Amino acid sequence: MTRTEPADTPLGDDFHLYDTTLRDGAQREGISYSVTDKLAVARLLDELGVGFIEGGWPGAMPKDTEFFARAARGELSLKHAALVAFGSTRKAGTTAAEDVQVRGLLDSLAPVVTLVAKSDRRHIERALRVDVDEACAMVRDTVSFLVGEGRRVFLDAEHFFDGYAFDPDTALRVLRAGGEAGADVVVLCDTNGGQLPLQLAETVREVAERTGLRLGIHCQDDTSCAVGNTIAAVQAGATHAQCTANGYGERAGNADLFAVTGNLVAKLGMEVLPTGGAAELTRVSHAIAEIANIAPDTHQAYVGTSAFAHKAGLHASAIKVDPLLYNHIDPASVGNDMRVLVTEMAGRASLELKGRELGVDLASQPDALTSAVRKVKSLEAQGWSFEAADASLELLLRREVDGPQRDVLDEPPFVLESYRVVLDHRAGGEVSSEATVKVHVSGHRVIATAEGNGPVHALDAALREALTPHLSWLDTVELADYKVRILPGHPGTDAVTRVLVETSDGRSEWTTVGVHENIVEASWLALCDALVHKSLRTAVMDR
Amino acid sequence: MTRTEPADTPLGDDFHLYDTTLRDGAQREGISYSVTDKLAVARLLDELGVGFIEGGWPGAMPKDTEFFARAARGELSLKHAALVAFGSTRKAGTTAAEDVQVRGLLDSLAPVVTLVAKSDRRHIERALRVDVDEACAMVRDTVSFLVGEGRRVFLDAEHFFDGYAFDPDTALRVLRAGGEAGADVVVLCDTNGGQLPLQLAETVREVAERTGLRLGIHCQDDTSCAVGNTIAAVQAGATHAQCTANGYGERAGNADLFAVTGNLVAKLGMEVLPTGGAAELTRVSHAIAEIANIAPDTHQAYVGTSAFAHKAGLHASAIKVDPLLYNHIDPASVGNDMRVLVTEMAGRASLELKGRELGVDLASQPDALTSAVRKVKSLEAQGWSFEAADASLELLLRREVDGPQRDVLDEPPFVLESYRVVLDHRAGGEVSSEATVKVHVSGHRVIATAEGNGPVHALDAALREALTPHLSWLDTVELADYKVRILPGHPGTDAVTRVLVETSDGRSEWTTVGVHENIVEASWLALCDALVHKSLRTAVMDR
Repeated sequence: MTRTEPADTPLGDDFHLYDTTLRDGAQREGISYSVTDKLAVARLLDELGVGFIEGGWPGAMPKDTEFFARAARGELSLKHAALVAFGSTRKAGTTAAEDVQVRGLLDSLAPVVTLVAKSDRRHIERALRVDVDEACAMVRDTVSFLVGEGRRVFLDAEHFFDGYAFDPDTALRVLRAGGEAGADVVVLCDTNGGQLPLQLAETVREVAERTGLRLGIHCQDDTSCAVGNTIAAVQAGATHAQCTANGYGERAGNADLFAVTGNLVAKLGMEVLPTGGAAELTRVSHAIAEIANIAPDTHQAYVGTSAFAHKAGLHASAIKVDPLLYNHIDPASVGNDMRVLVTEMAGRASLELKGRELGVDLASQPDALTSAVRKVKSLEAQGWSFEAADASLELLLRREVDGPQRDVLDEPPFVLESYRVVLDHRAGGEVSSEATVKVHVSGHRVIATAEGNGPVHALDAALREALTPHLSWLDTVELADYKVRILPGHPGTDAVTRVLVETSDGRSEWTTVGVHENIVEASWLALCDALVHKSLRTAVMDR
Repeated sequence: MTRTEPADTPLGDDFHLYDTTLRDGAQREGISYSVTDKLAVARLLDELGVGFIEGGWPGAMPKDTEFFARAARGELSLKHAALVAFGSTRKAGTTAAEDVQVRGLLDSLAPVVTLVAKSDRRHIERALRVDVDEACAMVRDTVSFLVGEGRRVFLDAEHFFDGYAFDPDTALRVLRAGGEAGADVVVLCDTNGGQLPLQLAETVREVAERTGLRLGIHCQDDTSCAVGNTIAAVQAGATHAQCTANGYGERAGNADLFAVTGNLVAKLGMEVLPTGGAAELTRVSHAIAEIANIAPDTHQAYVGTSAFAHKAGLHASAIKVDPLLYNHIDPASVGNDMRVLVTEMAGRASLELKGRELGVDLASQPDALTSAVRKVKSLEAQGWSFEAADASLELLLRREVDGPQRDVLDEPPFVLESYRVVLDHRAGGEVSSEATVKVHVSGHRVIATAEGNGPVHALDAALREALTPHLSWLDTVELADYKVRILPGHPGTDAVTRVLVETSDGRSEWTTVGVHENIVEASWLALCDALVHKSLRTAVMDR
């Protein structure tokens, strides 16, 4: 792996889409990647087509050392990206060649190295405890040593914007030390994330003029402006943008790679990805969220499941005529979909549109549409809500229309006879949940019992226990998220419980809904829909 | 309620912090406020000190009509904000005075009205199906009619930026029609959310010059730049910023009120809130998330629990020496905290203050305060939240201090031996819930069984069955509300369920909290706290 430039992107080395999900992004609270996770994330980023993948800090973090070792052994074969090792300039009072941490960067065999250096005089003096001369020498020595060893080097100027505001001369001296020693890009880092777009653009423009160096940008999201700041910096002359997948990062996070890329491609017309790359944005975003074990942000720009969801029944008929009047881009261009949310405000037009989106043709079957509208309205009056439960809505619609999948719906994969859940708080204080289900599946009557953390978990476990021997596809299916909402009753009626279940088979997620006055029954209804929906998909693929 | 200007903010009417959480923010997928919820959100926004609260669309939405009616009847007494009704310009081919929807705006009695008007010629012609002359007449007529009726009027120019790019003359004609008819502010709306900060600022500057009108800004987050765009617009001359709490809104959402306010106050030095308002940002953000039943975004700028969280290690000691070198602002200035897993409740000072509010004197017992802070932090790390559960917090605090009510806490009104809940879905489809409790009360061991709609209802019924003969005050006590939130587990731990129970005795209500991986046990913990709290009150009154 000796690539030091992005491959196959129209802009080539002229623009660097630089990803640091695996290093700076891993600072996010709650994220802890295994080495295998890191390799999987790197492969996804390469499929998207970013130019640089920063894999970690070899030498400093054992997992990162192993990541680079396995990558070098051939476990990571990158088609588009160059692999980058992150590290620090040498310590004070030694040489770069003798510095163990710097040697670790060489030993990683990464062809590109990004070095972090302090550029705020207060940090140099108070945290590093050296003077500016020594700080510049540390930069110069380390950069020229690594360049001499055949590495391409970028320099991250930490706390640059705060440092430049406090003492511009020091900040510029650090940049120049890096540039003169052979760093190809000096990256202006808003480490504390306090910048706003207009001033930041002004600073980038000024620094470009004063130094003539190739500039990069690295933004944190503490003002909720990381994406806007990154784009503003590019417009002001930066040609290297550091981002993280889904904006993962310390505190409020980093600039979201997917929003930055979407903006560069769709708004500024910059071809920063290989052909077809943009259409992978949504898939790669969700797959990385899965590996990071963080629920995808449904409202994330460009790639969120709600990013192109329209609630207003008001506009539904206009949207049908001309969707681009109501979307800022074509959702398909980033691999996403437009969704119409079915709510109380919904009428015929939006349900028909929704059907089209779900692959159910209601336009040609007006009676089915009438009946579906009536059912949705009646269920919504009872507390059901389909706006976040596409899979349940799809089942409802398919039950209304004639079509090739009727047989699956008419003969569901399993039929419940009964269940019983027992919850005990024993005299000793121990709490337990146990569920027994009796179901008919593939011609058998099966009884199974399982325990769980709570009633729904026990019921889900018992159902799997009963069905897995008979339904092979159930193996990959798991409950990904579970939400509960108690809905106040209308006068004269009791409160009901609405449960949303998100299910995953590792490749996609779908959401189902159940409503009942009893929370366990509501959960049961949603669980059943989730499995019927999966069996429908499986049946279609088998054909 | 006749206020039409912000009260008590240093900037007064010169700058409008305008909130549309209750109208545009309610378009977010999954949000469904009751009228009571809406009133509670409005009160929180007023406590923060926003200048304008848009309450909804009276006449068009029954809940919104009721909201304004109840506000007008005195249920909403605003200290800082002016109340705004949102609506549309008159229909084509009628007069404003005869338009039912426009009359609905008057009937709401809101002193301020924001009218939405289309300013993109394509929308005017294809969605509205009128020509530009008629579109301008619709604006002019409706604005002047409402101004004539004594209302202050703002005009939301929908799809302004796309419209201005497509046909600037039409877009400007619509603005001028509003301004000439008496609208105080014309609001440039990035309805599709496709703008980026630098261009948007350029457009705002240009429109200000060309029209001389007072400009507002309304941004959607489809490029992940809503906050940056809003701030850029303000720097370019807009003096009215429309936002929603936590950025709730359709698709990717709106500009987050808390990030925009944080940036205006902390970065631009604009005093848009009353004195002390900024320190309420975090509390109000979390309280509104609770009402919306949406888990707070832990990584939200300024107000997220991780917004000032630093991973230990590298920087920890340096942070201790000089925290401002590592934080873009002082977290306390927005009511947040630098530590991880700490809410506003967990600080010593605020817990002492909260104790005073609840009648528990912690100031004179520093050891008890230390111990209480430790317990609250530890419970919050496990998923407990006392923000909305004063009664549980009061019990926790009273257990720490010496005082006249210790005897009640040391000898609680009842002690649980065990419970069992059985949930059945029988072969015939019938669903039932039955609970048995074994408790010790007034020297007796009592066993009681009862049925209910669901597990918690059955448990509550069995407990009453057991206790009522022995505790006379239980008669008046009933479960008034019940909320459930599933909290995702940290890596390596299971999800937990948090239950909030609101209990009433006909004279007052109190809220308690329970957290457990098993929803029924979590509910049990909250139910027990509710009854112990009532017995404490009863014991005090008996003295």
